[in-house]
Amino acid sequence: MRKSLTTEAANSTRIELTEEEIFAAHEGGKLQIGLTAPLDDKRDLSIAYTPGVAQVSRAINTDPELAARYTWASRLVAVVSDGTAVLGLGNIGAAASLPVMEGKAALFKRFAGLDSIPLVLETTEVDEIVETLVRLRSSFGAVNLEDISAPRCFELEAKLIEALDMPVMHDDQHGTAVVVLAALTNAAKVIGREAASLKTVISGAGAAGIAVAEILLAAGVQDIILLDSRGIIDAGRPGLTGIKAAYAARTNPRSITGGTAQALDGADVFIGVSSGTVSEEVLAKMSGDAVIFALSNPDPEVHPDIARKYAKVVATGRSDFPNQINNVLAFPGIFRGALDAGARRITPAMKVAAAGAIAAIAAEDGLAPDHIIPSPLDDRVAPAVTAAVMAAVEAEAK
Amino acid sequence: MRKSLTTEAANSTRIELTEEEIFAAHEGGKLQIGLTAPLDDKRDLSIAYTPGVAQVSRAINTDPELAARYTWASRLVAVVSDGTAVLGLGNIGAAASLPVMEGKAALFKRFAGLDSIPLVLETTEVDEIVETLVRLRSSFGAVNLEDISAPRCFELEAKLIEALDMPVMHDDQHGTAVVVLAALTNAAKVIGREAASLKTVISGAGAAGIAVAEILLAAGVQDIILLDSRGIIDAGRPGLTGIKAAYAARTNPRSITGGTAQALDGADVFIGVSSGTVSEEVLAKMSGDAVIFALSNPDPEVHPDIARKYAKVVATGRSDFPNQINNVLAFPGIFRGALDAGARRITPAMKVAAAGAIAAIAAEDGLAPDHIIPSPLDDRVAPAVTAAVMAAVEAEAK
Repeated sequence: MRKSLTTEAANSTRIELTEEEIFAAHEGGKLQIGLTAPLDDKRDLSIAYTPGVAQVSRAINTDPELAARYTWASRLVAVVSDGTAVLGLGNIGAAASLPVMEGKAALFKRFAGLDSIPLVLETTEVDEIVETLVRLRSSFGAVNLEDISAPRCFELEAKLIEALDMPVMHDDQHGTAVVVLAALTNAAKVIGREAASLKTVISGAGAAGIAVAEILLAAGVQDIILLDSRGIIDAGRPGLTGIKAAYAARTNPRSITGGTAQALDGADVFIGVSSGTVSEEVLAKMSGDAVIFALSNPDPEVHPDIARKYAKVVATGRSDFPNQINNVLAFPGIFRGALDAGARRITPAMKVAAAGAIAAIAAEDGLAPDHIIPSPLDDRVAPAVTAAVMAAVEAEAK
Repeated sequence: MRKSLTTEAANSTRIELTEEEIFAAHEGGKLQIGLTAPLDDKRDLSIAYTPGVAQVSRAINTDPELAARYTWASRLVAVVSDGTAVLGLGNIGAAASLPVMEGKAALFKRFAGLDSIPLVLETTEVDEIVETLVRLRSSFGAVNLEDISAPRCFELEAKLIEALDMPVMHDDQHGTAVVVLAALTNAAKVIGREAASLKTVISGAGAAGIAVAEILLAAGVQDIILLDSRGIIDAGRPGLTGIKAAYAARTNPRSITGGTAQALDGADVFIGVSSGTVSEEVLAKMSGDAVIFALSNPDPEVHPDIARKYAKVVATGRSDFPNQINNVLAFPGIFRGALDAGARRITPAMKVAAAGAIAAIAAEDGLAPDHIIPSPLDDRVAPAVTAAVMAAVEAEAK
């Protein structure tokens, strides 16, 4: 194991990670179970197990609402994957996806104090995944879907939201979208514009692209063009079906046709979530004071040093450049807020509120082209997102 | 909540548990997730999550055997129930069974350092439970079935053992059986007999009764009579099917017919796992120096003070009398030993070895009618059981 990965130190210089240290850190896995109270004597045992626990089980049997109070399920997130779209690795299957899900569970604990368990599934059939989680529904209080391929992820999330009476969110969609909205909110301020007025191009109509379009529409952005590998998604394009047809009807108000070059002509914002590339001559067509979010990882659609030639504000998914768009800013607080508020759904208003809280933390420290988003390690973020999400739940209940 | 439960202090005097303290101890549940390594800086994040974790996922995708080394699954026990036979409460359903499963997971951690997650199922269909766990198989390394009603539990355990390539054990069957064998081994010594020669009556042909019969047969006990609610299970009894027919062929060598009175006439050992009662006049028919294990909980088949009039050695499931038959002596070490040894099955030889280790610990301290089994809190037991089970795995591999 001689290869090494590069990543960043706290101040955006790269540090080397060796395979040795990565694998050593994963030995035996990254999670463990702990007890919330000691089991030191017979009295402890009699309370936590028989005969005491029977009182608690009997009470829940009589009043199912008590399960939320006297079990860990109501504050437990199931981190669920079928391993079909893992990081940049693609469809590597359930077992190989588990280290990522353990990492996700570790982030839930670290940033929001939330317990979670990874559940990886050997099936990729949407209805079987739904059926499996419905059978297990009393075991947890929320579902974070992770690394599930598009377009299956849209159908799966929608069916789970219907079938499970609990918060369900596909983080690759909505976590990304929330942080993008936060970053775009602040980028708009940096360039002195209203976010809603920005001509915005989203390159990539997979899980992240669709969710970014959805949240920007929810936030009031008027002029969005969505591109897939075949070009601009336009209502007039033949053969559009499913979710792409649905978004064709809600985007591209100027009915532009063509590809990236036509879309970016005069655009204010480019958001890349495509794993593709975009050329300098095309970026040169964007308006002055443009915004470029080149989010493909580890290789952005355009290198940030090039992007800066054509944009005032540049963000990437990488931690070794300024303005890292990292889902960890969003999902811990969103789930914590939803669970603490007893929400049954994660609504668009809750996501927009989360984005607002993230944006506000960065703004507190002063906005600048190189500072539109907080650090992923900023411990103010998750509590602020939690509070904003809870407030949104309360507002929607009125 | 004014009612109270009585249980025992360390030296077998009863202590009072109030509902207030039981419910307070269950507030928020009894389990939590912990991290095995800190996530304090960007370097930690880069190792545990992106980009570092991708190396680990890629390695497992290439060599699936590595999952055992680099995830928590290989040392994780799924504590699985459908809530159909919970403690003395019966079929109370998945959600109400969860506090018991959390307690079980806490015991795994406390006594064997094993991580486990409760998975409670909304379905009671055997094939659906099997299907669900097969889909989730990469998420854990062993299955402890718990509180699943007979006779479904036999079919479920057998099908899971076939379907999952990992240790699977229904603890209500085999945990109980292992501790009974340990106690009977030492009781035989106390009365100066060979265990194999003891005329043994088992009252109750549910999960525990069948498993006790099985392990006693495996341990060489020759003369076993098994009773269900309709009396002695004899090969000549009309209408016997399934597992009872199978055990009729392997027990009752003297072909006794009738009920408890006929079975106990001249018997050396009575093992009650029936929730029924047994009268003094019937117990009076047992041989001199008899052994009575009245294991129904919380109400033994006969009160130990009465039982002592007819038996030299008496054991119960209760912690406020001597000789408590408690599964916690067995299951933590059995699963730890099976997982540490990389076993694919929990075999009869492993269970008999576990019983031997438990018996040996009690014998170390000196056997007596009131001391045939260690305390459930004896910290020597789980490591001894683990070692004995691992040795049995090694011996069987030869």
